[in-house]
Amino acid sequence: MAATYVFGEITGNPVGTTYVDREAVKNAGVHQVTQQGISGNRTDGANSIVVNGGYEDDVDLGDEIIYTGAGGNDPSTKRQIADQELTQLGNAGLVISEENAYPVRVVRGSRGAEAYSPITGFRYDGLYRVEEHWAETGKSGFRVWRYRLVKLADDEAAPYVPLSNLPEGNAKPVRVPGLVQRIVRSTMVSDAVKRVHDYTCQVCGTRLAVPVGDYAEGAHIRGLGQPHHGPDQPENVLCLCPNHHVLLDKGAIYVDDDFTVHDYQGVSLGQLAQSPDHTIDVAQLKYHREAFGLPQSSA
Amino acid sequence: MAATYVFGEITGNPVGTTYVDREAVKNAGVHQVTQQGISGNRTDGANSIVVNGGYEDDVDLGDEIIYTGAGGNDPSTKRQIADQELTQLGNAGLVISEENAYPVRVVRGSRGAEAYSPITGFRYDGLYRVEEHWAETGKSGFRVWRYRLVKLADDEAAPYVPLSNLPEGNAKPVRVPGLVQRIVRSTMVSDAVKRVHDYTCQVCGTRLAVPVGDYAEGAHIRGLGQPHHGPDQPENVLCLCPNHHVLLDKGAIYVDDDFTVHDYQGVSLGQLAQSPDHTIDVAQLKYHREAFGLPQSSA
Repeated sequence: MAATYVFGEITGNPVGTTYVDREAVKNAGVHQVTQQGISGNRTDGANSIVVNGGYEDDVDLGDEIIYTGAGGNDPSTKRQIADQELTQLGNAGLVISEENAYPVRVVRGSRGAEAYSPITGFRYDGLYRVEEHWAETGKSGFRVWRYRLVKLADDEAAPYVPLSNLPEGNAKPVRVPGLVQRIVRSTMVSDAVKRVHDYTCQVCGTRLAVPVGDYAEGAHIRGLGQPHHGPDQPENVLCLCPNHHVLLDKGAIYVDDDFTVHDYQGVSLGQLAQSPDHTIDVAQLKYHREAFGLPQSSA
Repeated sequence: MAATYVFGEITGNPVGTTYVDREAVKNAGVHQVTQQGISGNRTDGANSIVVNGGYEDDVDLGDEIIYTGAGGNDPSTKRQIADQELTQLGNAGLVISEENAYPVRVVRGSRGAEAYSPITGFRYDGLYRVEEHWAETGKSGFRVWRYRLVKLADDEAAPYVPLSNLPEGNAKPVRVPGLVQRIVRSTMVSDAVKRVHDYTCQVCGTRLAVPVGDYAEGAHIRGLGQPHHGPDQPENVLCLCPNHHVLLDKGAIYVDDDFTVHDYQGVSLGQLAQSPDHTIDVAQLKYHREAFGLPQSSA
């Protein structure tokens, strides 16, 4: 990682610092590019974004931002005129930051959502983390990548430490109360699906032996949380090992309508193991493929 | 599963129902055995416990109970006179209920903690889930198994549905606010450890490829949460694939002082992959082995 590629707060630029223009933001080191909304690449991750009404699909809720990836839009009309690609530098950078929980600086410009944006110029609004990303068909009919960013609590906004120095960490991590939105999900649903498949991964056949019993996970094909709002029903749940659960949730594997499993590059991993006692809803498989911009079924 | 083996609330016995003695509790079907504190076995799981001051190591906090497993105690003095075994029927049953998130009925007797126990006889106090289990050296110097049970919220106390009927589930699961104790952990610590090992599992060499980047998890050897209170520092963190993270957290694998990895039955799985840039604290490996009642190192 280049020494100039800095994550976290920039000295002398506390939350609320204002700048007359993008050039001033860049000179302060807060957002290190003047044209792009995302400062990032596929190797280092993304370290900052500018939210300034650049995409018709952006949603700014203050502490939570649904941010649209880069590419495919006409700079003059701001409309999408082509699909966005996840391999685009800034888009890939935000995924790297999601995977590694890197803090992303958020700068707001005066053309953003009225409630949260400065009246003129630009303002540094603190550090966010990328919670998740997914593909959507945007308002103009083309694929856009969407990122949900959530503002970090003060105690999470730690400075970035480069790889060569292993951080010391915290010998006695503290507990703080926090209010969360808990999704009321039925353990019965996952439990029943796991029993039907005898705790065996439907993708790889792994059954993890633990000291008492076996272990598998009930994985929702269409996620329960925002923005997917999938059903908590057996037809939307697979019995998977933790590794394939992660891969499904990250769009690294997908299932075709004929129940062939593929990796995200399209390589077949074989057939999903099935049971006559457990019907899988192909509409949810289709949703999952679409949500990750994966190939649609030829079945 | 036998038809008489019922999980969840028993019709006609709402929370607060009182009983003159254990025989009355049994006749109501609330705790189906009269001698043992745990009603359960290795196949079906545990469906109820009685908390009645039977073990010197029990801790009753009302909505949370640290419950001691069965076996090894002298019924007259209540002192431990031998090690407890996880394979004991009731002890194994509570682990099965933990794995499957089965609801466990809690009955309190008059000899339990004063603040939460009935003055005479027994009382049904609702459904709890088993959050975790671990081994400890009890007050008398012998190994006891400990279970942390947490009271279910009302919306979680769903009736048990047998395997033959796949539950319908919930097409639109709702969100409810909930107050949690969040442990402030540094993503930097896990992040640095994962980078040192290039996102490759130190046990099996798996590196999960996701559409952008690679995926691994930072696994704390000695857990951060109750009751372990481990340090959030690199020396206490391994880079693992999700499968081996689960196996470590459940005591299904352990690491010897010479960094040989074993399954819980002692079979060697080979050497833990190491890096000169990442020192592992053998004291935490020892703690982990002890906490799961696993063999101690011969190294």
